[in-house]
Amino acid sequence: MSGLFVTFEGIDGSGKSTQARRSFERLQGIGQDVILTREPGGSPGAEEIRALLVQGEGDRWSPETELILFNAARRDHVERTIRPALERGAIVLCDRYVDSTRGYQGEEPERARLIDLLHDTLIGLDPDLTFLITLSPEAAASRDVSVKGNETRFESFGSSFMGGVQERLITRAKKEPDRFCVLDGSGPIEEINDRILHQIRERLDRRPDSAPHSWDCM
Amino acid sequence: MSGLFVTFEGIDGSGKSTQARRSFERLQGIGQDVILTREPGGSPGAEEIRALLVQGEGDRWSPETELILFNAARRDHVERTIRPALERGAIVLCDRYVDSTRGYQGEEPERARLIDLLHDTLIGLDPDLTFLITLSPEAAASRDVSVKGNETRFESFGSSFMGGVQERLITRAKKEPDRFCVLDGSGPIEEINDRILHQIRERLDRRPDSAPHSWDCM
Repeated sequence: MSGLFVTFEGIDGSGKSTQARRSFERLQGIGQDVILTREPGGSPGAEEIRALLVQGEGDRWSPETELILFNAARRDHVERTIRPALERGAIVLCDRYVDSTRGYQGEEPERARLIDLLHDTLIGLDPDLTFLITLSPEAAASRDVSVKGNETRFESFGSSFMGGVQERLITRAKKEPDRFCVLDGSGPIEEINDRILHQIRERLDRRPDSAPHSWDCM
Repeated sequence: MSGLFVTFEGIDGSGKSTQARRSFERLQGIGQDVILTREPGGSPGAEEIRALLVQGEGDRWSPETELILFNAARRDHVERTIRPALERGAIVLCDRYVDSTRGYQGEEPERARLIDLLHDTLIGLDPDLTFLITLSPEAAASRDVSVKGNETRFESFGSSFMGGVQERLITRAKKEPDRFCVLDGSGPIEEINDRILHQIRERLDRRPDSAPHSWDCM
């Protein structure tokens, strides 16, 4: 596949969705073939599975059933949205992917192994580049509440849970330094975004068939 | 688990659902703690996943996504319905289970391996006893149409597909002769059912904690 698969990871309120959207706008602005997608969801079938996951009581599904449903949604998303775009050579920017599953659901070692096994067996597509935006859970919480009014999620999870999620994401990033680019999310949005675009540019230039880009306007 | 997990398998129209229901009625009639359930479905969550699977166009999900969704439904069914019943010592009669997945979706060798891998990894519960009711696809088709008015399924699959399904079920039965009891479905319903009840009785008597049963009325 000749495209570039880029994912954005981080705890709620870290700024990753803002960075994904801003990157999409700038890449589109210079005429790149780029799509912006997200998980859970990202294709009509995956959106329907997502609806099953978020409706109803919190204990409606066991953690294992939830994990299987996430994989069904991701399989559909990859088949119907991500792979076709990569195959035509596009840049795919995805807000959350398998690392979110690892971070949010991978606390228990046995479940963490199951997450990796299912990913390798059922999905089999890793990002070329992953931006992990870090921020203290407290700063992220205040930002998340003010930006999105999304108190419920934080109230139910708590900042110590979010601290654990971020720790697992950082541990993963250390294991795969070539894939991950870890960025401090406390700085100005545009500065962080400049670094992201710089990294994407480098990856595009590394492709064997890379043509000259109009990077100057970035 | 002290209960007994019994599944009924066979192609559409083979008579397995009739046999499962009749067995349930007779076991209930002699005061056994018994439940009758079915797949796909069998628990509220699994029924919702089943609705996702049967709605919409035939190519709505890829075979792989469909397989993952079947496993999510089965996981919920096992967790919420089958295991709790087995744990209290009940007989669980289930109309279709993993062998149906093997028969209907396991034609390609690679997919057959994936079916087994997902079953071992995500479900991990095998029946104690499986009745495979065999019947020629043509006889099954005519019976199925007359009994259930279910022409659509047969028209879309065809009898050569059903022949392949049955062959895969028989191959599986030969691999696990202790678990499977293969019955010719062309005989009288009550005669077949007598043999089923006889087998269930034998299995119950083999349990270490088996108490005397009032089998005479069977």
